Amino acid sequence: MQRIEQHASFGGRQEVWQHASTSTGTDMKVGVFLPPRALAGQKCPVLYWLSGLTCNEQNFITKAGAQQFAAQHELILVAPDTSPRGEGVANDEAYDLGQGAGFYLNATQQPWAQHYRMEDYVVQELPALIEAHFPANELRGIFGHSMGGHGALTLALRHPGRYCSVSAFAPIVAPSQVPWGQKAFAAYLGPDEALWKQHDTVALIATAQERLTLLVDQGDADDFLAGQLKPELLWQACAATQHPLKLRMHSGYDHSYYFIASFMQEHVEHHAAALNA
Amino acid sequence: MQRIEQHASFGGRQEVWQHASTSTGTDMKVGVFLPPRALAGQKCPVLYWLSGLTCNEQNFITKAGAQQFAAQHELILVAPDTSPRGEGVANDEAYDLGQGAGFYLNATQQPWAQHYRMEDYVVQELPALIEAHFPANELRGIFGHSMGGHGALTLALRHPGRYCSVSAFAPIVAPSQVPWGQKAFAAYLGPDEALWKQHDTVALIATAQERLTLLVDQGDADDFLAGQLKPELLWQACAATQHPLKLRMHSGYDHSYYFIASFMQEHVEHHAAALNA
Repeated sequence: MQRIEQHASFGGRQEVWQHASTSTGTDMKVGVFLPPRALAGQKCPVLYWLSGLTCNEQNFITKAGAQQFAAQHELILVAPDTSPRGEGVANDEAYDLGQGAGFYLNATQQPWAQHYRMEDYVVQELPALIEAHFPANELRGIFGHSMGGHGALTLALRHPGRYCSVSAFAPIVAPSQVPWGQKAFAAYLGPDEALWKQHDTVALIATAQERLTLLVDQGDADDFLAGQLKPELLWQACAATQHPLKLRMHSGYDHSYYFIASFMQEHVEHHAAALNA
Repeated sequence: MQRIEQHASFGGRQEVWQHASTSTGTDMKVGVFLPPRALAGQKCPVLYWLSGLTCNEQNFITKAGAQQFAAQHELILVAPDTSPRGEGVANDEAYDLGQGAGFYLNATQQPWAQHYRMEDYVVQELPALIEAHFPANELRGIFGHSMGGHGALTLALRHPGRYCSVSAFAPIVAPSQVPWGQKAFAAYLGPDEALWKQHDTVALIATAQERLTLLVDQGDADDFLAGQLKPELLWQACAATQHPLKLRMHSGYDHSYYFIASFMQEHVEHHAAALNA
């Protein structure tokens, strides 16, 4: 791992690292915030952030304002890129497929299958790296925004026991039922919709083994609310199996990092309550 | 004035406006954060932010994390661009002269004099616009970063009575004595160094009529510390006339918005103490 940025931040340190990933077969960049206790060498829990479409490792670390709360609660924040990248990596001209749009799954279809293995990367390889190279314990939380909210929710549901806490901002909760998800799943997973359901929060809730409370914030002025996000489907799925859900609608908020920053404190506190228990 | 962006943020609203400026003869963009009380139509004080070299109206509003504190203290935040811009506006290929580098003064030299009138814009035109179009009272604070810290300090010192409070992050305190300032002042003001002193904080302190406390934060890992910023010159100038100065050096902090965000709360509180008194 090679450190390519470091900045003092709220008594801790925001770093960016680059490393050769065995999952994606590419160099991956990842933001790592170390709180004061980690700088002093004491092991801290790790809260993983998954970004949305078009983002890289920079958006969260520059715009979300999470460091102040991670410093207070002594959590390491890890924010990877949203896909493999590079000249040899398959891509698409659209913003919602290919580089910047990995959807946090392992692609099975060509031309994506070789490099687009973001589920392996986020769930297995990255935590192993973080826990080996930083003063991190094995308590993990995961959260994200939009496509990254989909990532956080599905990865927590697909890997019971791996995460202590999960939350999302404006997540894609039913990708099998909306254009963003249908396009990505058809490309990455092929036409068999039974396979799509394995990466669809609303479908996964029905058979969830673990009953982690889902904290989900959603703005009602979000341009993608009705067409891509559909939080009512999550509400119905959780109600059907009495899966614990804290779904909060916020009047006037849109899909931007202004929305994310506004409710960041409560998300970090949600994770800290589980990770520092 | 035309509103070109609006986002709910911390119970208030972050907006971006564009307007034809009589000072610069160009269209100018400006970020305006309205706290909850302003959204309810009650008049609030206004805290002006001046950004550094290469910035436009976006950097502060996306990266500084100031909205949460402005919302708490019910302050309007106004963050203008750093220079006139556009095809008909003089420019230079360097990052530290021309567009993005207005230095918050009225240029007297060609080819700059026609549009580069940022002092008139920031001190006169913009407050008049803000106080006419938003629920703003006439209590004003001013702060900024680097070139914008120079702007905040010099404009407060040059216009006694106009601002209730002033502060700066990593300001250029003695532009007449460092390369950034010498290059800009030679271009915008010509070779007479006596004119430069009228826009130089360290020189202005010697004859300051008003004794506003200067709150100045500076990181000791700032790459520009020794060559361009020289806070020791500000310390000496304030000591010589017993001008009130709170100069705080911070171990490990650099010149970035990570530094700014880390101490934003205390700056907003400094201004709120004066503006909400």
